[in-house]
Amino acid sequence: MIFRQLLDYTSNTYTYLLAERQGGEALLIDPVLENTDQYIQLIDELDLKLVMAVDTHIHADHITALGALKDKTDCASAMGSMTKAECVSIRFDEGEKLCVDNLHLDILYTPGHTDDSYSFVLPDRVFTGDTLLIRGTGRTDFQNGDPAAQYDSLFNKLLTLPDDTLVYPAHDYQGRTVSSIREERLYNPRLQVAGKQAYIDLMNGLELDNPKLMDIAVPANLTCGNRKAA
Amino acid sequence: MIFRQLLDYTSNTYTYLLAERQGGEALLIDPVLENTDQYIQLIDELDLKLVMAVDTHIHADHITALGALKDKTDCASAMGSMTKAECVSIRFDEGEKLCVDNLHLDILYTPGHTDDSYSFVLPDRVFTGDTLLIRGTGRTDFQNGDPAAQYDSLFNKLLTLPDDTLVYPAHDYQGRTVSSIREERLYNPRLQVAGKQAYIDLMNGLELDNPKLMDIAVPANLTCGNRKAA
Repeated sequence: MIFRQLLDYTSNTYTYLLAERQGGEALLIDPVLENTDQYIQLIDELDLKLVMAVDTHIHADHITALGALKDKTDCASAMGSMTKAECVSIRFDEGEKLCVDNLHLDILYTPGHTDDSYSFVLPDRVFTGDTLLIRGTGRTDFQNGDPAAQYDSLFNKLLTLPDDTLVYPAHDYQGRTVSSIREERLYNPRLQVAGKQAYIDLMNGLELDNPKLMDIAVPANLTCGNRKAA
Repeated sequence: MIFRQLLDYTSNTYTYLLAERQGGEALLIDPVLENTDQYIQLIDELDLKLVMAVDTHIHADHITALGALKDKTDCASAMGSMTKAECVSIRFDEGEKLCVDNLHLDILYTPGHTDDSYSFVLPDRVFTGDTLLIRGTGRTDFQNGDPAAQYDSLFNKLLTLPDDTLVYPAHDYQGRTVSSIREERLYNPRLQVAGKQAYIDLMNGLELDNPKLMDIAVPANLTCGNRKAA
C-alpha cells in the first residue's frame, strides 16, 4: 500500500493519500483547498491516478479541495449520505465501501462532531475525522453536533475495533501523527467517563470559541469548496 | 514494530520513536528539548522503556533533548564518533548498529550538512537527518558542511538503498511526513545534477540566512542540551 499523511500547517488538518500500488488508483481523504496543487503533483510523481476525493464531514476550519480536485483531475467527490453538500458526485452509507483498486475501506457512520461525520476502516487503521482525535474528541456544539451520538460513535463503533488498529484523525495540534485504539481507550481523557451522561456533561461544559474560518468554511464546503454560495 | 513520528511545530523537526514491541525497549531519534515530557508520557503510555536517545547530528535550529532524557529516564545518549559533543554516553561508527530489542538499525556515516551527520537504516526505511530531505537536501554552509561530501553521502550511500525504502528526514517545511528513495532520486530538484561539481556549485550558490536559533542551539547541543556551555 502507498500511504501518505500530509499536514496543512494553517488548519492543522491531516490529509491522507492512499493507493494499493504504484501505477494504480488513488484516494484522498480530507484534502485542503490551498494544497490542491501539492496533492496533484505528488499523485503524478507517485504515478497514481486520483479516482476519488472524500471528506469525513463538512469541515468548519478549512475549505475542502473536493471541488478543485474534481475540476482539475475529473476524480469523483464523495461524502456520506447525511451531508448537506449537494455538490458531491458520490454519497455513501455505513456498510458500503470506498474502493481504490483492491483497497477496500469500510464505512462507519460516526456522528457527534457533526451529523454528517463518517469514519473509514482498513484492516490495520481507521480514519476517524473529527470524531476521535488523539487524546481528544471533536467538539459537538455546532453543525448539529450531538454528544450523545458521539458517545455512541466512540464507544459502540470506533472503540470496538481491535486494540492495535492505528488511529489517523483529521487533525492534531501537538505534532502527533498517529495513535491506536488501545491508547485512546486507555489514555484519551474524554473517554475516561462513567457513562453517556457524563460524556454529555463533559462536552456541553467545554465552552469553546468558534473556529476562525467557520463562517467562511462551512458555506464554502457545502459547495465542495467552489465558493459559489459565498 | 511500534513507530511514531512526532512533529515539533516551532522548528519543523521530526522526532521518531521506535520499538520492536509493546512492553519492550524504545529508541528516540532527534528529540527536541521542549517536548521531553511529551515523549516520556507517550513512552510510558505505550508501555515502553526508553533505552537510547540519538541525534543524527548537532542540530542548529533546536535544542536537543538528549541530556534531559538521560537525566529523566537514565537512557543512553548517542551520537556518531565524529561529533564534538562530549556529553554523549555512546559514540557509534558506520558499520555498527543501533539495537532496541530485535530492531537493528544499520548506521551510515553521511557527512555534508555537517561533518557529524549519520543516517540510520531499517529494511524498509531510512532516517536521513538533514542529509536527505523531502525534495531537498540539508544546507552545507556551516558546521563543517561540505557539498562534495554530501554529494558522496547522497549518491554513493543513500540513493543506493532500494527504491521503495521510505525516507524519514529530520525536517519538512511543507507538511510532508515521508518520501521514498525512488521519489527523491527522480524528483528531488537538488539531485537532478550532472555530477559532483554541479552539486557543489548548486549548494555554494544558495546564500541562505543562518537559522534563528543557531547561536543558541549549537553550543547548547554540544552539551546535549544541558546548556552548561551557554
